Amino acid sequence: MILTVTLNTALDITYRVRSLRPHASHRVSEVAERPGGKGVNVARVLAALGHEVTVTGFAGGGTGRAVRDRLAGTPGLTDALVPVAGATRRTIAVADELAGDTTQLNEPGPQIAPAEWGAFLDRYEELLDGASAVALCGSLPPGVPVGAYANLVRLARAQGVPVLLDTSGEPLRRGVAARPDIIKPNADELAELTGSHEPLRATRDARRRGARTVVASLGPDGLLADTPEGRWHATPPAPEFGNPTGAGDSAVAGLLSGLAEHLPWPDRLTRAVALSAATVRSRTAGDFDRAAYEKLLTRVAVTAA
Amino acid sequence: MILTVTLNTALDITYRVRSLRPHASHRVSEVAERPGGKGVNVARVLAALGHEVTVTGFAGGGTGRAVRDRLAGTPGLTDALVPVAGATRRTIAVADELAGDTTQLNEPGPQIAPAEWGAFLDRYEELLDGASAVALCGSLPPGVPVGAYANLVRLARAQGVPVLLDTSGEPLRRGVAARPDIIKPNADELAELTGSHEPLRATRDARRRGARTVVASLGPDGLLADTPEGRWHATPPAPEFGNPTGAGDSAVAGLLSGLAEHLPWPDRLTRAVALSAATVRSRTAGDFDRAAYEKLLTRVAVTAA
Repeated sequence: MILTVTLNTALDITYRVRSLRPHASHRVSEVAERPGGKGVNVARVLAALGHEVTVTGFAGGGTGRAVRDRLAGTPGLTDALVPVAGATRRTIAVADELAGDTTQLNEPGPQIAPAEWGAFLDRYEELLDGASAVALCGSLPPGVPVGAYANLVRLARAQGVPVLLDTSGEPLRRGVAARPDIIKPNADELAELTGSHEPLRATRDARRRGARTVVASLGPDGLLADTPEGRWHATPPAPEFGNPTGAGDSAVAGLLSGLAEHLPWPDRLTRAVALSAATVRSRTAGDFDRAAYEKLLTRVAVTAA
Repeated sequence: MILTVTLNTALDITYRVRSLRPHASHRVSEVAERPGGKGVNVARVLAALGHEVTVTGFAGGGTGRAVRDRLAGTPGLTDALVPVAGATRRTIAVADELAGDTTQLNEPGPQIAPAEWGAFLDRYEELLDGASAVALCGSLPPGVPVGAYANLVRLARAQGVPVLLDTSGEPLRRGVAARPDIIKPNADELAELTGSHEPLRATRDARRRGARTVVASLGPDGLLADTPEGRWHATPPAPEFGNPTGAGDSAVAGLLSGLAEHLPWPDRLTRAVALSAATVRSRTAGDFDRAAYEKLLTRVAVTAA
């Protein structure tokens, strides 16, 4: 079983409008809802790839109920979310038909009480026993200590479970110091962590800070991996045009899936880049186009970096 | 008991953001939620004025549950909403701190099945027995026949319950033909109904189409009433600056409250204008400022029109 942690789960809502104009009143023509938060997205892709995956983190209120109801209908996915008194946040993506773009509104998330954080830590330790890998993903809701991920990395390492960390800012900085097996920053997150905008130098610096492997996502330029076994640059055959929402989460799913199957690094990177590109190409934000994924698997280029 | 009907109830959500920019991602700094839909707003004001009020219409899904949970905490208000399979709509008001304005996103509402509409009609007839007045408010959710309000007006008249209709477009046109006691269109709705932009002519025309009394809301210019007892124009002492959300619903509550207490028309209009102005002045959208209301009661001018 692969475990994914989403401390700030979300009910992701997409609204379709003709054209978004500030100050105006809009009739929403289409409403779509699905469970979200980075770790939940990663879990959905892992389940679609045929892995047994368990989702933990927090859920509460009517929005939390909506998230859990929908997770219950996903084959291969087990819900191990911890109940909280506050309500799971909503995110609203307003898709503008005329402009062809999206405007995003993200609620901050529920206040987590110390006792709720304690209950989560107990559940997490139980779940680690039986996990082949764990991914720690996304932002922290209010009330969770900023060193939370550092703590979760240490607990995973203590039980010998490989741990991937995908977050940003201070939680990333502290988490890296706890020596995670993999971090997957994008170019901005990596620059914020290391102070360098030069990816090769920045990945090396991030490893020096404690990450065993750094996989930097460079958008349309693919992934740059600095690992104990070597350095590689994996690129898609051509830039993808579409919606990049969830492309990073799909890359994380590809890395975890390859880790769980003990694939060599170049194969893990190929899978991650193919999934990421197939997600950009998908018509539904955050889903991947399976036919495109299978075709891309044979066309991703991996070179020594 | 006063009965208010809200066929398209809503969970009204307000987001505070620093500045709304299309295509950007926004962190919402504050989230507020409350039950909405015009008839629900009218009921809240009536309850605050000390009336016993019953709310009916439809509620469903997690959003419907959130609406009902909150209504349960309002003293003087009885929840008689009819459950439906679809989810109650959300409305999102995005308050822009920098621009000082609001952008509105309204979901369409749940699809109402014929059997659900039938169940509502049964409930409505039961509730009319015991009502001193009824208000029919707002838009129709998908699946409800366009002649719905005409039908509800006839049922109220058959039981001798005075009926106020506050809607727009084709549902208003058909509803007026069923001879409601009062309609309360704003200037645009009245012009759409009658084809005239001249309020005195338009109110007269709307009465000819079937409304016993027409009370036109003219924004900062107050109310123009054309009744069987005479014609009046009621104006606030000065234009109010603030948020006009819910001002029309407060005016309806004022008219109904005066009707239930058998006040003469000028007193009803005074109450409606004072409540409406006190709603614009309130810091919370849709609430009225009670101190302002009591002061305004002595300062509204009512003249023959």
